[in-house]
Formats: sequence, structure tokens, C-alpha cells
Amino acid sequence: MNISALQKVRYEYKPKLPSILAGSIDDITIETGAPTEAISDMEELRGIFKNTYGKPLVTFSKGKNDKIKRQLKVGVILSGGQAPGGHNVIAGLFDGLKKGNSDSTLYGFSGGPSGLVENKTVILTPQIIDEYRNTGGFDIIGSGRTKIESAEQFAASLETAKKLNLDAVVVIGGDDSNTNAALLAEYFLANGSATQVIGCPKTIDGDLKNEHIETSFGFDTACKTYSELIGNLCRDTNSAKKYWHFIKLMGRAASHIALECAFQTQPNVCLISEEVEAKGMSLDQIVDQICDSISKRALNGDNFGIVLIPEGLVEFIPEIKKLIGELNDVIAANEKEFAQITNYVDQLYFLCSRLPECSYNIMQTLPPDIGQQFLMDRDPHGNVQVSRIETEKLLVGMVEKKLSERKANNKYNGKFSHQTHFFGYEGRCAFPSNFDSDYCYSLGFSAFVLIASGFTGYLSSVKNLTSPASDWVAGGIPLTMMMNLEQRHGSKKPVIKKALVELDGKPFKTFAEKRTIWAEKTCFMFPGAIQYFGPSEVCDSSTITLRLEHEK
Amino acid sequence: MNISALQKVRYEYKPKLPSILAGSIDDITIETGAPTEAISDMEELRGIFKNTYGKPLVTFSKGKNDKIKRQLKVGVILSGGQAPGGHNVIAGLFDGLKKGNSDSTLYGFSGGPSGLVENKTVILTPQIIDEYRNTGGFDIIGSGRTKIESAEQFAASLETAKKLNLDAVVVIGGDDSNTNAALLAEYFLANGSATQVIGCPKTIDGDLKNEHIETSFGFDTACKTYSELIGNLCRDTNSAKKYWHFIKLMGRAASHIALECAFQTQPNVCLISEEVEAKGMSLDQIVDQICDSISKRALNGDNFGIVLIPEGLVEFIPEIKKLIGELNDVIAANEKEFAQITNYVDQLYFLCSRLPECSYNIMQTLPPDIGQQFLMDRDPHGNVQVSRIETEKLLVGMVEKKLSERKANNKYNGKFSHQTHFFGYEGRCAFPSNFDSDYCYSLGFSAFVLIASGFTGYLSSVKNLTSPASDWVAGGIPLTMMMNLEQRHGSKKPVIKKALVELDGKPFKTFAEKRTIWAEKTCFMFPGAIQYFGPSEVCDSSTITLRLEHEK
Repeated sequence: MNISALQKVRYEYKPKLPSILAGSIDDITIETGAPTEAISDMEELRGIFKNTYGKPLVTFSKGKNDKIKRQLKVGVILSGGQAPGGHNVIAGLFDGLKKGNSDSTLYGFSGGPSGLVENKTVILTPQIIDEYRNTGGFDIIGSGRTKIESAEQFAASLETAKKLNLDAVVVIGGDDSNTNAALLAEYFLANGSATQVIGCPKTIDGDLKNEHIETSFGFDTACKTYSELIGNLCRDTNSAKKYWHFIKLMGRAASHIALECAFQTQPNVCLISEEVEAKGMSLDQIVDQICDSISKRALNGDNFGIVLIPEGLVEFIPEIKKLIGELNDVIAANEKEFAQITNYVDQLYFLCSRLPECSYNIMQTLPPDIGQQFLMDRDPHGNVQVSRIETEKLLVGMVEKKLSERKANNKYNGKFSHQTHFFGYEGRCAFPSNFDSDYCYSLGFSAFVLIASGFTGYLSSVKNLTSPASDWVAGGIPLTMMMNLEQRHGSKKPVIKKALVELDGKPFKTFAEKRTIWAEKTCFMFPGAIQYFGPSEVCDSSTITLRLEHEK
Repeated sequence: MNISALQKVRYEYKPKLPSILAGSIDDITIETGAPTEAISDMEELRGIFKNTYGKPLVTFSKGKNDKIKRQLKVGVILSGGQAPGGHNVIAGLFDGLKKGNSDSTLYGFSGGPSGLVENKTVILTPQIIDEYRNTGGFDIIGSGRTKIESAEQFAASLETAKKLNLDAVVVIGGDDSNTNAALLAEYFLANGSATQVIGCPKTIDGDLKNEHIETSFGFDTACKTYSELIGNLCRDTNSAKKYWHFIKLMGRAASHIALECAFQTQPNVCLISEEVEAKGMSLDQIVDQICDSISKRALNGDNFGIVLIPEGLVEFIPEIKKLIGELNDVIAANEKEFAQITNYVDQLYFLCSRLPECSYNIMQTLPPDIGQQFLMDRDPHGNVQVSRIETEKLLVGMVEKKLSERKANNKYNGKFSHQTHFFGYEGRCAFPSNFDSDYCYSLGFSAFVLIASGFTGYLSSVKNLTSPASDWVAGGIPLTMMMNLEQRHGSKKPVIKKALVELDGKPFKTFAEKRTIWAEKTCFMFPGAIQYFGPSEVCDSSTITLRLEHEK
């Protein structure tokens, strides 16, 4: 294996732990609070999680813990999309296990949850772990998107746990995967298995958080990587003074990434999907908002700027959401006939009599190359693949059109040239920032303490994250405490509630106060590349979102 | 101004200088060699550059220099596309000037060469300089692409030099801008002006180099920024094992950036335009080469990988170059008629009888959305805007087609999913690496010494760049020495020869030895983000291209 200079020196990095975990392994005990409740639908959830509902919050403190030196067999799963720091969760878990008892074993399940179902494992040795410390990616054991849903999958998982004689399974994943972890914990107990299940909060999207989870891991590194690039584009366009850059940012439904990147780079426009939905904004109003910034800046002679667009935007525009739903219905009802029309003009003609007028009118205003994306590439369920719609090009096309209307009406007299970008995959596997390196290692170590202490159906938790790592508070949160019931595929399912951007929260309010000036003036900031060495204010700081949320 | 944490600490960075420049200003003297010659067309060039042709190479050494403490007035121009480190060239020039004589003045010409023509200046104060030390971008005075070509522009430039009573103009630019600098130096002398002209070698593309210029500034930082992102994608795809990423890289005609990024990340495929041209490869052969890697990896179960594509590729494929030329001709000859055809199918039909059969056949094989890019968006001269052709999507489309043919013939049995990327603007304004910070500062300081010592028509030069900065060799190279005559717009013009990738050079040969293994196996490297602090092997190393060139 060829290893880069940075990778070599990152191997030497010693992640910081909360002081309770950094001390002697003989001096970590458990404090439990009162029983907890789900955020809603308590009765139904109590019925679904008969064995795991309502457990107490757990924190660690100094003291004796008889169980901590047990010899353990644990399996770990990386589930879903990559997030920087996953390897450190595993390293923290491994080091905890070995510190507790050098005869303990850590299995890695290969390729995600399917590794558990199919009993595909690799025994994680010190040599393997050392090759992946403080590195990005999920390549140590691979990840996967299999969801353990069917009775057969649950039974097969139990079978694997029995065969390996597992004391615990650790699931590193997002809201869906941790919902799965909760169901698995319940299933194991209900079927007389002693195998415990512990989750760890992963997702770059930042939408797995609540009053007990301050942030999901990977969000910090991903936002810093995107902000590096956005800042570079800010500087580039401030130098050449020639382009408006329209930048779509990964993050699925939630706009947390866009908002954090806005704090770090101070762009002229940053759209927030949650606001668009709350205000019921039309596509035309969004385009107007962008054109207002462009027009104002043109008056100052500034025919350049930066627009940030959250990945999920189109689905939050009520009229577009409606259009997508209606398109799905019309195309599904006329599948064969529609499939034979290959020309966009003819497709539009076909839809004309079949779509409600309002939706058809919107369809007509879309730039043709983007309109086609609404019609092509349907997923196996026959639905538009929203993530494949190039929202950044859609907006550029509509902005161009509106600007020429304004020009015709003497309301705009600038020049508009543009570039479009999509930043996503670039940020999911960066070397984790010091923050994510420390946070993940602590989450993994905490997971070990929860396991050794006999807990199941818990999420590993590390709080107080804006303080130095030594003051972080480690413990566990009952997974059922974060759940409610939501409609999924026609029936109500228990799920961990996704956290979207709160419009009355400190981060959004802070942004809302500043954006009027940003829209007109050039207030760009240039954060630069993530630094792993150097002054603490450069290499150890957390996200601005996290800091603002702590101030509230 | 809001300033990021990194920017604040970068202000404190002290760029390293060659020891000759780091010492006392009273102890820098000039050593000159024998008269020089141009690389070809000596007689014609001697005629064009009557006053500046054939000057000697210059190096600096310890000794007395009567002129170095002269009070000077100098103007500086940032010309063309941004490259990381431009601000440090200006800072080095400024510090040199002030060290020589605190009453010396540095003017910045605003917005590129037009600032000289139009006498738009800003006086660079210590406060301004301090705000831009070790930062990316050209925003200190802005850049521009005006070329000083007409008699009026030359006369106006002379007028400005007279008005400001300038001792010298420093042009920070690429091959074109430095050709311009040479012409300006000659013009000033020929017209009795004492204003000297000194160039500095800038371009991320890396194509301004020769036996006297080891590398242009900005190449190091840009390649490291792109390699960070490519490495992250390598890690991402090695984790999810799902996508082939097709990545187009900025760099115009030359493939230096793609080659350097290949060394830093070890992708499965890296196309080199210069090789494609030398071998007369067809588009179909290139697609075959990519499909061979995909097929081989599929046999190992590896349905993922990384393909790097230099920006200029299409123009180096002989048949596509021919197609583009013929399209330009046909469309120009039928401009009005063609403009009225808006449908791609009808456009193809129109071209069918007018394009030579061979070119028409290629046109037909192009994916329609890319074929349209060959027909739309023509530049003011009526030519295809080659940089706007999405080569990465073109190749993906053709690879998909060929893979399904192979599948039909039982020659491929994998899954092919893809993502496309274009990395360019993201890398032009990054905070300069320590290497570029040091190199640029040294170039600027050298420019000062050349000016103080009375030279004109020289390029500031810093050599021996793979050694520690203290051992770097500073001096100047006569611009005419790097010139030849080339056909431009129908007549022979003196130009600095562009350096493309040499197929018999050490870098390409090294790559050619390794790529067979890379094509089949997973040998990815993950360089991570540029580091400005930490161990020297991480934060001070130069490009691999430079190191290989030094080994030859």
C-alpha cells in the first residue's frame, strides 16, 4: 500500500477523550437517571418496544464497575453513506474493548448490515486498526445500505449473533440505521438473546440531532471541506469579478450543511429548504430572491457572486413537490405509452392534457434540459430521482430568463455569466478533522463502556462538545427516547425523528440577520483547507452551527 | 472584513527565501553569463527585439551592488487567470523595494494589463500588503485578460509609465502575458523610455516551464487542492464500491495537472492529451482503454474506479480536432440558416450533407446532449468553445454504450454506475501552499533585485526548487531566450513556447510504467488537504512532477 505523507503522520495522532474515559479503566462507572419517554406516540412505541422502551439516560462517572473487565465479543457495522470519522469510532471501540480485557474480540461485519444477516465478518486485529486510525472512508470493512426489515433478515441476524456468540452489535449509522438498531435490540431481547445493540450517530447531513445528540459525526469535516471549496470560489470570483457560481451542496432533505457553509463563507445567497417550505415559496419567488441580489450587486458594478443551494430544495417548493407527485402519477398511469415518446416537445404535449394546469404551466417554464430530468431516470418505484435533478442548473436557467426580462424593463443593467457546481462525494471521506477524530473515538469508546455495562437499545452519546474534549460528557441515550411514529410506505412505523433546520433556532435566526448585507455587499470569508496541526483555533474548532446552538 | 482563523494565522507566516536574498540587502550582487540565443528563429527574433535580444543569464551572489538602494517607483500587474501565490509575489517585491529604500513606491495596476493602459492604479501601502500576505486570489488589485497588442495600447502604456515616472513594470502572468512583457520591454527601450519590464512565471496549468524555469507558481497548490478532492473520491468509492468517478481537471491544452494528480492519487485511468495526439488515438480507442480497465476490475468484483481527464483532451484527438474545424467552417458558411434550426435531430440532418462523411459519423456517435455542445455556445469568432464541452460526460456516455455492447458479446459482466466532476475554479485561489508561498515571495524579491540592478526584458527566476529554500538559486532569464515564432491569427508572432507533457520525460515515463497496475488493481492514495503547519514532509514538499524532473 502506498501511503501519503499526511496519512503517515495522522496515524500518530492521539484522539482526545473526555477525562472520564481517558483515565483508568477501573474507574468508570454508570449513573442512570429516571425512566424516559418517546417524543410522542408513547403508548404505541411502548407496545412495539416491550423490552427496551423507557430506559433511563446514562452518564459515566468515576467509580467502581465490576463488569468493565469482562471478556467480550462484539461485532461492528458501518451502515449507509460514508462520513469522516467512522474508522475512529471503530478504533475507539477497539481500544476500549482491549483496555477492558485484552482477550476481547471485535468482529467487523463486511459491507454494511448485510454482513450481519449473511455472517460475513473479519476479525479486527491491532494491525488492521492501526492502518485506519484517523483516516477518512469506510473502507476498513466497507459499508452498505441493506435495511434489516424482513422476519428472515431479523432471524438471520440472530443466527449470526448466536454463531459468533456475540455480546453486542454496534451499528454506526444515521437515523434509519439507528431505528434499525433499536428494532434489532428489541428483537434480540424478545427472542431470548443476550446480544446487546448500541448505535452511534453518523451522518454528514447533520440531521440526526436533538436535545441529547449535539451533532452527528462527519458533519464537521464535510462542512469544512465544502467550505474550503466555496471559500476558494469566493476568492476566485472576487478576483476575476466575472462569474456567479451556483453551488449545490449535499445534505439530502435538511439544509444544515448549506447553513453551516454559509456561516463559514458568507455567500451572497444561501437558500434554506425549510424556510422555502414554511413560507410556501414558489420557484418564481426563489428566482426573484436570487435576481434581487444579482441586480443590487450589479448596481455596485459587482457582476459576480456566490449562491448556495441545498440538495433537497426542489422537494420543499410546494408547487414543485406537487408537480413531482402528479408527474409520478400521470407517468405511472400511462407508462407504456409515455415510454414510447422520446422527444421532449412531444412529451410536454402528451402531459399537457393530463397534468393539472398549474403544474403544466410550471413544467413549461423549466429549462428543457432540466425539464427532461423530471421525466427521465425514474427509480424502481417509478418515482423521479430527485437527487439527480440539477437544481443548480435549473436555477441558473430561470435566473437568466428573469434577468433578461428585467433588462427589457430597465430594471437590471448588469452582465450575467455563471458556473455551476455540485459538492457532495468530495466531502464524505476526507481525513476527519481533529474534532471528528476526537468525537468519533470518544463515541466508540463510550459504546464499549455501554456494552461492558450491559446496556442495549442505546445510542452512544458524547455531549458538551464546544468545551475542550477533557470536559466532554460521555454516556448513552435510550434509542426509543428519540422516536415517534411516521407514515412510511402506507403504514405507521417507529422512526427516529429527523432534525431539519429550525426556523426559530439560533443558527437560522443569526443567518437571517446577516443575509441582507451579504446579498448586496461582498462579505466573503475564506476558511481554507482543514488543518490538522497548528494553533488550536485553526485545527480544533467545531462548527459555527454547534457553537450557536450552545449559546441559546 | 471578517477573516477566517486560518487567514489570521497565515498572516504570521514568514516565507522562506534563498539565503542570498535573506541576508543583508548590501550584500547582493549580480553575476552575468555569456549572451543568450532564442530557442529558434534567432534572426527574426533579433530583428523584432533589437534592444533586448540576446542578453545574458543573471544570477545573484554575495557582493557589493551600488544600485540596490536606489529609490524606485514600480508598478505591478496581475495578468490572466488566478494562481495561488500571486499576492506573495507582490509582497516579496514590496518588501524588497522597501528593504532597498524605504522611500520606494509600489503601484498596483487595477484589473490586469488594462490598468497600465488606462493608468488605473492604487498605491500599495504596508497595511494593504499585510492584509494579503500568504493568501490566495488576485483580489489585492484584481486581474484581467486584456492583451496589450495595438499601437494605441503600447503608446498608452508608455504614457502611463511616463506620468507615474516608473522605473519598472512587473508583469505576473503566463506564457502569453510574459510574451507581452518582452514586447513591452522592447517597446519602452525603442521609444527612449527607461522603464524596465520584468515578468514572473504564473499559471496553475504548469505549461510555462523550460530548462530555466522549473515550474510556474500556483501549479503546486492547485494540484494539491485537486488531489485532495480526487483522493477523497478514491476513498469514497473504495468504501461504497459503487461508482466510477469521471473527473475533468482544469489545465487547458497541457496535461501537467492531470499527470501530477495521478501521481498523488494513483487513479485507475488518467488520460494524457499529448499521448493521445502523438499516437493519433481515436475517440473510440480512448473509450476502449477506459472500458478495458472497467472490464478487468469487474472480473475482480470491483465495479468502481477513478478516471482523470485533462481539460484540453478533445482538441488532441485528431478526428475530433478535424470535426471541430469542419463544424466551425460549415456553421460559419451557413450561419443564418443554421441558426434557425433549434432541434438537434434537424441540426444533424442539416449537417449530414455538408460535413465530410468521417466527421459526420463521429458526430452521430456522440451522446446527443454532448453533441449539442459542439453546435451551441459559439465564441465571438464563431468557434466552438471547447472548454465548455463536458468531456467527462461525453466519455461516460460512450463508455456506457460500449460496455453494453461488450455485455451483449459476453465480454463484460459488471455493473456500471457513474458520477462526473469538473475541478478547476476550486483550485485557483486556495491559500498558497508553503512551497508556493515561499517560491512566490522569492520570485517577487528577485524581481526587485533585477529592477534595482537595471535589467529589463527578464523573467524573475528561482531554481533548485527541490532543495530547501535556503539553497534556492535566484536570478533572471532574458525573455527572448525562451521564445520562438509561431503562427497566430494568420501571421508569425514571437511567443514563449508552451511546455506540454513530454512523452520521453521522466514524469510521463514513470506514469506509463505504473498505469497498467493502477488500471486493474486498487492502488489509490489519499493525500488529504493541504497542510500549512506540521511535519515538513507534509507541509513543505513540492510536486512529484518537479521531483521526477530533477532526477533526470
